[in-house]
Amino acid sequence: MGKGRLEAFSDGVLAIIITIMVLEMKVPHSPTFDALGPVVPVFLSYVLSFVYVGIYWNNHHHMLHASTKVSGRILWANLHLLFWLSLLPFATGWMGENHFAALPTGFYGIVLLGAALAYGILQRAIIAAQGPDSILKRAIGSDWKGRISPVLYLCGIALTACDQRWGQAVYVLVALMWLVPDRRIERTMAHGG
Amino acid sequence: MGKGRLEAFSDGVLAIIITIMVLEMKVPHSPTFDALGPVVPVFLSYVLSFVYVGIYWNNHHHMLHASTKVSGRILWANLHLLFWLSLLPFATGWMGENHFAALPTGFYGIVLLGAALAYGILQRAIIAAQGPDSILKRAIGSDWKGRISPVLYLCGIALTACDQRWGQAVYVLVALMWLVPDRRIERTMAHGG
Amino acid sequence: MGKGRLEAFSDGVLAIIITIMVLEMKVPHSPTFDALGPVVPVFLSYVLSFVYVGIYWNNHHHMLHASTKVSGRILWANLHLLFWLSLLPFATGWMGENHFAALPTGFYGIVLLGAALAYGILQRAIIAAQGPDSILKRAIGSDWKGRISPVLYLCGIALTACDQRWGQAVYVLVALMWLVPDRRIERTMAHGG
Amino acid sequence: MGKGRLEAFSDGVLAIIITIMVLEMKVPHSPTFDALGPVVPVFLSYVLSFVYVGIYWNNHHHMLHASTKVSGRILWANLHLLFWLSLLPFATGWMGENHFAALPTGFYGIVLLGAALAYGILQRAIIAAQGPDSILKRAIGSDWKGRISPVLYLCGIALTACDQRWGQAVYVLVALMWLVPDRRIERTMAHGG
Repeated sequence: MGKGRLEAFSDGVLAIIITIMVLEMKVPHSPTFDALGPVVPVFLSYVLSFVYVGIYWNNHHHMLHASTKVSGRILWANLHLLFWLSLLPFATGWMGENHFAALPTGFYGIVLLGAALAYGILQRAIIAAQGPDSILKRAIGSDWKGRISPVLYLCGIALTACDQRWGQAVYVLVALMWLVPDRRIERTMAHGG
Repeated sequence: MGKGRLEAFSDGVLAIIITIMVLEMKVPHSPTFDALGPVVPVFLSYVLSFVYVGIYWNNHHHMLHASTKVSGRILWANLHLLFWLSLLPFATGWMGENHFAALPTGFYGIVLLGAALAYGILQRAIIAAQGPDSILKRAIGSDWKGRISPVLYLCGIALTACDQRWGQAVYVLVALMWLVPDRRIERTMAHGG
Repeated sequence: MGKGRLEAFSDGVLAIIITIMVLEMKVPHSPTFDALGPVVPVFLSYVLSFVYVGIYWNNHHHMLHASTKVSGRILWANLHLLFWLSLLPFATGWMGENHFAALPTGFYGIVLLGAALAYGILQRAIIAAQGPDSILKRAIGSDWKGRISPVLYLCGIALTACDQRWGQAVYVLVALMWLVPDRRIERTMAHGG
Repeated sequence: MGKGRLEAFSDGVLAIIITIMVLEMKVPHSPTFDALGPVVPVFLSYVLSFVYVGIYWNNHHHMLHASTKVSGRILWANLHLLFWLSLLPFATGWMGENHFAALPTGFYGIVLLGAALAYGILQRAIIAAQGPDSILKRAIGSDWKGRISPVLYLCGIALTACDQRWGQAVYVLVALMWLVPDRRIERTMAHGG
């Protein structure tokens, strides 16, 4: 079975998630700087979530590029990932509207953690479908970013109990870590694939 | 006529349905556990509907994979299915916001019943277009899941009149029944297709 | 230049239009039949608009299938059509929420009229791009449905001034007229194309 | 790596942006001409933004058509462009709801400026990926429209400080400038590509 529709459906869902988040930025009813004030934290949390969805789309793009066939298990692992990402607009809006308070910051971290674990499950499902000679397995190598991210999210959630700014700093840090280009899959496919 | 655009359009509509349902979870205006309380039932009904849309997308994917040409009748049977599924966000929101009360639970069942019947109509339209040697017909075999689901939904709707929890249990049961992997089409296509 | 992205973009916009219309059906806050009452007219106008978008998607599908290359003029004629159709959720919601009052009914007709004229412009742009031997021109033949629809919409808008139910009857009539299968393009392409 | 998914994702995001803008036009609760009044400025700003998204989609379509391979830098430059365009629904709603007041008009210009600069960055990333013999570089030639647009937006934002109608006139002017057909890429690819 082809992977075309899996990519198309995922692209659709990710495109909608990234776009409806902007709907949480409520249009102010007066044309003043003061009216723009309450929108600023929502905007900042929107930027962070936009970057996260961008990272997931990017990695998803690469991962499926290195996969060949699609099984029922992969379809559901992919839906599971999309489920966690679909909670991001809610988590983003809650954190932004409440000026980065502790509880929504922790909740935001839980959604990030769930998405990271779901991504790992999807990755393992694709590798399992490819068998012992999996090109994806070689491509991701030690996958240290994928291994360390859930741990960092857990730290971020725990640190939020002390001071939520620590938690937010961790989320930003993880995003920056992923933004640094990572050409493992591209390189492996070009050389050994 | 190719089936590419039919798949693309269906993917688009299903991706939007699955994503706008999350908009029914209104962002709480305060950062407390209490504020999260009213969201919980909406979240639970969102999870159930997410699984249902996932099942439909998955089965739709397989069914169209086993179909070859697209007729006007198939186009409209497909739109009819999408119509019922497009009512799911409304039914989900109504059931969730009213804490799984009886009437919205029954209404939710009616939408599921309509979608199940529409799916059957679409399946018959594709089989009819393929003629006596239909590969899809062989692939679905006895189609006991497709036959029993509308009956179960009817039972669920009827049971809701006594106690809505019975109805909800039936809806969850049917979803679980479909989640169990079903490799009929994959197997038939691999061997006999 | 290929027509793939033109189709993909149009599919995306039409999928979103057809799906966000359902957001105009506001979820009632109580689980009673009475609470469902105000939703009924919005639902009925939703059904009508769903059928119209389905007809446009269907015809657009056929028309682009019979076209070969895409010019800048075709791109903008297509965007012009999508613009009118993008006003349909607003017109649907206004007509439904005000229980099919005269003014929103007339406005709904104007949007339908605009979309019909835009469709005609797009059709002429494609025929012009195909030159004197246009397969689309042969396929649509006399195009009596396309010619009579704008006239009927104008009648519907005029009749709304007397009694809006006449206008609504005309809109339903035109939709039914298009729903009757029309195999001109399919037939021409199969035989003469 | 193919450019198919990049196009599909961009199409999805642009299709959603162009469609959710219409949600800023709140459905009036009464069926009178007076009730339609407040919608008129929102409608006008919607038309302007629809044209802008149409122009971006059109140019994006041409630019990617003239590009061959996709690098990580291109993926992120593309997401950066989509980020600025995703702010357009918010900017449109704010300007429209406040009857084209000065501050939202200036903000709208800033979003247009950001999108124009992001488009330039994406263009340079594609040219860099194509190397010294870039077909896109030849196709865009002097790119006077791309060079002058950011300057004009800056003028528009500055003029808004005096009288916002000047700013709005500039935005309309730039849109008209881009609407005039520009066959550079088509011509270059037909002849020299």
